Amino acid sequence: MQLYTAPRAPNPRRVTMFMAEKGISGVTLVPIDLNAQEHKAAAFRAKSPLATVPALELDDGRMLTETRAICTYLEGLHPEPNLMGQDFEERAFIEMADRRVEWYLLARIGHCIRHTHPGLAVLEQPQFPQYGESEGRKMRETARWLDATLAQQPFVAGARLTIADITAFCALEFARGLMKFQPGAEDMPHLQAWRDRMAERPSARAF
Amino acid sequence: MQLYTAPRAPNPRRVTMFMAEKGISGVTLVPIDLNAQEHKAAAFRAKSPLATVPALELDDGRMLTETRAICTYLEGLHPEPNLMGQDFEERAFIEMADRRVEWYLLARIGHCIRHTHPGLAVLEQPQFPQYGESEGRKMRETARWLDATLAQQPFVAGARLTIADITAFCALEFARGLMKFQPGAEDMPHLQAWRDRMAERPSARAF
Repeated sequence: MQLYTAPRAPNPRRVTMFMAEKGISGVTLVPIDLNAQEHKAAAFRAKSPLATVPALELDDGRMLTETRAICTYLEGLHPEPNLMGQDFEERAFIEMADRRVEWYLLARIGHCIRHTHPGLAVLEQPQFPQYGESEGRKMRETARWLDATLAQQPFVAGARLTIADITAFCALEFARGLMKFQPGAEDMPHLQAWRDRMAERPSARAF
Repeated sequence: MQLYTAPRAPNPRRVTMFMAEKGISGVTLVPIDLNAQEHKAAAFRAKSPLATVPALELDDGRMLTETRAICTYLEGLHPEPNLMGQDFEERAFIEMADRRVEWYLLARIGHCIRHTHPGLAVLEQPQFPQYGESEGRKMRETARWLDATLAQQPFVAGARLTIADITAFCALEFARGLMKFQPGAEDMPHLQAWRDRMAERPSARAF
């Protein structure tokens, strides 16, 4: 299998971190240069029609895109350690947690960075800086909710590590790098402590 | 079980249409008045901390939010007809299709309407009309891709009806009502024909 990836982008990192937690090896990483618009070129669109990374090319040639769908497939191939739920009930509650941090934390961070950062102007046109700043404020509302959640439980979805921790960690790392967002400096100590524990995992260095 | 819903909003409609396709009955619908900000009041936030509908209250009192997570749970309780995939491989490919129409069609329609429609000003503050208009143009790029996809296959994910058709239909109905978007009038005949077939299903009238 080949994974088309972009090493600095948060969504491809979710997949490589997920693979690292499962100890999956043998997937060839193929870098796509987003700044050179390689994802929008015809050759890549033939594989990923909406020009998105990550994209997983299966050994039979079929293409699977969308971060979470790729993880569903990899979880099926490599069930242990389980990261997405053992039965439908646990799967649903972990999906809820994963979606909460994906839609209301990662997406807002993405909107903020893509609409305010000069370095992202090549990827996001037109940029609307005031919209991006507004999304940065809304992202902090989600982060405060997550800080309160992590005061009550060790991981984003509850008692154990799941895909939701990977999504939230990759979101916060993107915000740390390009928004200089530090939860601890904004009175979110539980979120900072969880982030620091996550950063110690070997999977946090998988790109 | 009780489903907290908002009858005119697209995400709650995805769940009620999903239930109708499965013939699920016995779930009590509890309307939440978004225009009156009922979803942001403390009583509802105690059930859905990020103030989102739909939200499913289980018989044991636990709350499950996020449209697709609710569907995962209902699919587990009521496996037939299958709408999300029989095994992990099919689940992954249907999830890909569902996410494509959720992130690049429905979300962009939502951004466009929430940032441009005067009736949504109570829900989206601040509104950025130029951003909304830009999202409306990007939504049409996705719709054109979907039109081409539906020229090749009868349903969004392939040969049979799945959750991805429900997501796309509810997205387009939201756009039809509040953006006056008609695929057939914008040279997308396959998307229009698929929409018209979907509108004939009894589940299209489930709110």
